[in-house]
Amino acid sequence: MMSFNMGGTAEPVYSVPEYESILGLFLFPDLSFTTSQRKSKGDSVKMDVLTGMKQKETMEISQLMTEMEGKTVQINGAIHTIRDMGTVAFVVLRKREGLLQCVYVKGIAEFELEDLKEAASVLIKGTLSKNEKAPNGIEVMIESVTILSEPAETMPIPISKWKMNTSLETKLNLRPVALRNIRERAKFKIQEGVVRAFRDFLHQQGFTEIRTPKIGSKGAEGGANIFKLDYFHTPAVLAQSPQFYKQMMVGVFDRVFEAAPVFRAEKHNTKRHLNEYTSLDFEMGYIDDFTDLCAMETGFLQYMVMLLEKEYEKELIILDVTLPRVDKIPCVRFDEAKELVAGKYKRAIKNPYDLEPEEEVLIGQYFKEEYDADFVFVTHYPSKKRPFYAMDDPADTIYTLSFDCLFHGMEITTGGQRIHDYHKLLEKIAARGMTEEGMEAYLSAFKYGMPPHGGLGIGLERLTMKLVGEDNVRETTLFPRDLGRLEP
Amino acid sequence: MMSFNMGGTAEPVYSVPEYESILGLFLFPDLSFTTSQRKSKGDSVKMDVLTGMKQKETMEISQLMTEMEGKTVQINGAIHTIRDMGTVAFVVLRKREGLLQCVYVKGIAEFELEDLKEAASVLIKGTLSKNEKAPNGIEVMIESVTILSEPAETMPIPISKWKMNTSLETKLNLRPVALRNIRERAKFKIQEGVVRAFRDFLHQQGFTEIRTPKIGSKGAEGGANIFKLDYFHTPAVLAQSPQFYKQMMVGVFDRVFEAAPVFRAEKHNTKRHLNEYTSLDFEMGYIDDFTDLCAMETGFLQYMVMLLEKEYEKELIILDVTLPRVDKIPCVRFDEAKELVAGKYKRAIKNPYDLEPEEEVLIGQYFKEEYDADFVFVTHYPSKKRPFYAMDDPADTIYTLSFDCLFHGMEITTGGQRIHDYHKLLEKIAARGMTEEGMEAYLSAFKYGMPPHGGLGIGLERLTMKLVGEDNVRETTLFPRDLGRLEP
Repeated sequence: MMSFNMGGTAEPVYSVPEYESILGLFLFPDLSFTTSQRKSKGDSVKMDVLTGMKQKETMEISQLMTEMEGKTVQINGAIHTIRDMGTVAFVVLRKREGLLQCVYVKGIAEFELEDLKEAASVLIKGTLSKNEKAPNGIEVMIESVTILSEPAETMPIPISKWKMNTSLETKLNLRPVALRNIRERAKFKIQEGVVRAFRDFLHQQGFTEIRTPKIGSKGAEGGANIFKLDYFHTPAVLAQSPQFYKQMMVGVFDRVFEAAPVFRAEKHNTKRHLNEYTSLDFEMGYIDDFTDLCAMETGFLQYMVMLLEKEYEKELIILDVTLPRVDKIPCVRFDEAKELVAGKYKRAIKNPYDLEPEEEVLIGQYFKEEYDADFVFVTHYPSKKRPFYAMDDPADTIYTLSFDCLFHGMEITTGGQRIHDYHKLLEKIAARGMTEEGMEAYLSAFKYGMPPHGGLGIGLERLTMKLVGEDNVRETTLFPRDLGRLEP
Repeated sequence: MMSFNMGGTAEPVYSVPEYESILGLFLFPDLSFTTSQRKSKGDSVKMDVLTGMKQKETMEISQLMTEMEGKTVQINGAIHTIRDMGTVAFVVLRKREGLLQCVYVKGIAEFELEDLKEAASVLIKGTLSKNEKAPNGIEVMIESVTILSEPAETMPIPISKWKMNTSLETKLNLRPVALRNIRERAKFKIQEGVVRAFRDFLHQQGFTEIRTPKIGSKGAEGGANIFKLDYFHTPAVLAQSPQFYKQMMVGVFDRVFEAAPVFRAEKHNTKRHLNEYTSLDFEMGYIDDFTDLCAMETGFLQYMVMLLEKEYEKELIILDVTLPRVDKIPCVRFDEAKELVAGKYKRAIKNPYDLEPEEEVLIGQYFKEEYDADFVFVTHYPSKKRPFYAMDDPADTIYTLSFDCLFHGMEITTGGQRIHDYHKLLEKIAARGMTEEGMEAYLSAFKYGMPPHGGLGIGLERLTMKLVGEDNVRETTLFPRDLGRLEP
């Protein structure tokens, strides 16, 4: 650890806080403390006691903003960039709350500017002053610096630029470094906000958070798109959804949710597919019909927008995000939606029972143009396109009581009412030519009684992508997994 | 759907709320709504608009508790048990907030008691009254009932009993049903509280929640205990910890956390091992030393106890839980701890560089007996028992700046300071005879600068187990995965 001192004082600028300071008010009798000395025979028990959080002398940006001008402060951070203007230089620190401008003036700071390297972690001591042109309106006049850690090489990409103008491929290859760019990391703060909103909102609505296994003996919904693994010489699979488990748990907690990874061995190589993604799932009992689910999702989206406005304003500004309209979300039947876009955009309906990605885009466009809507619920998907557990519409069993939610023309949610009657579930399984084998536990929940229920799953990365205006889901995935990418 | 009516009224007791009621105040011009009718040619666009949450007529227990006696109420739930006392019968509903006693009196309720089955989902209409002896001090005099769903068979285990006296094996085999027992499900509400506390506390402390991939090309810490899978003809593994990723993300957000599944292909078949479990991980930059991490965990444990006391009182009472002491947590060196228990319990030290489970138990016992402590930090584990990235103690490189946290003598946390200097990391890798291959991305984070940092991982199921006083980690895992169990 190098240390640059201001004056001729022998005291280090940055002293590691005394370990004893965390002892608090209480000391066990006959106990003394030692960090790294070994106990010698005959000593009393050497022990420390933790009583809670440590007070730190270093400050974060939000703390600095409440401090008085002229105060001597200590701050740590990574040197994001150094702009040398001659007699004065700006040393911009990257801290978790944002950027902090520190001012180096030769002679005031008693060390050479050359001693500082971009990407070094430092502890700076200086004087706080206000500057409207600096980020957050504050800056620190540097007095002394302690280098905590230094890089071994210079940055391979210009992470301190506002827009890096680096290809997605390069950004993904250099992920741990590329994410240090302010705009890149802001996307994942927004993503954090989305998940927080999902959980907090559902918690308020009486949902219980559950954790279901990701390794299982059979895929929840069957099909070929399942990753297989050897589980102590037994064939096993990775969960492609928590579907069976969340339904089973409705019988326990009435309302449950989970925000966890799901795995899809799909060979899609598109801008909107990942082979591992985060699914925001909920399942609720005692619904009157599937629109209860749409209403719950609407409530979540409204809460999400509110939370982002309130607590993620900084990131919304960094990314220049205009939040979507969530006050009124149109709800349109699948067949109706197909006809609407076929009519308006002069497009022949090729397959009445399937929705092509292009049609989804046009549905989004239609409702944006006609009603200024950013989200649309498309309801009553054909039964043949939905899994066996989907409840058919009793009024027309070609369709189901299900829906997708589109955000700017992209499916971000799939949901619907499920069959809750044991015998009806068995009938549907038989009608599909499926086997009950491996579904015994799932079916047992129904055998012993299940309330009417339904649920949905939201693709977190897609929702984030659309929120921040990206067009590739890899842009809003920390470490994406796709057909060609297992690293980093 | 069967419906039992009270009087001779033609109106159904329970009418599905009109879909139109969710239209709110706003209607798009020229739009009308239809649920299941197909659009006829020439009709205008049939569409509904969702404006938020639906208001429900049915009430939850907390709402009922604020209502006036004598009020006519509607409630739904599963029939947990029926106790027929002759002229009066108690129909106990299981709702998400607890049990609700409903009273059936022949003649007042105009249907036969025989029409009700245990495990059916029902909607009950009745009159609210106070009764100190009933759960939550309230009960509902039943007027009419609507059966929403019925079981196909009677319960295979007595879930309505306070203690089921059923073997763990049976409970796990019948998991979706066994969890409906009030005590069983209470454990998982406590678990929810633990995770909420972890996230909320760390969020307040400036940590960012991250989501790291569970499929990767190489295990974070190497070793044989890794599940392998085929990833589109490329060998891949399941993450045994988010270690590498959370460290890389310290370079981005300074402080990060994740609560997610991890996978260990260990062939342990003990009461405290699972092959898939939830790891509560955090990693923080700019630490002064590893005791910052212990202090942060102490802060979390204190917050957790506070949250459980405040919001999970009901479950604590159901499970008769006495929360652990978290005001003062002793912190003792590994070698010191070994000598303490060897001395007090007359036990020879077999291996000075390893801690046996029996020794952990005795350390727990020692600190409980001597200091009434429920948690203990055991620090300075031998370097050879810690992974390569652990920082050795400069004062004695046989040991590391690391720790475990024991709860009643069981390891629930492993953590420590990590090497942050690129060259030192390379040296340690070389000294261990390891290869850098497959670690390029991880190492790149250090090459381009990383602050001093450290972190820890807490086993959620173990922590919950100890909190609720169970002795097998499967008791506090919704759907455990072990050597012999992949189902349900």
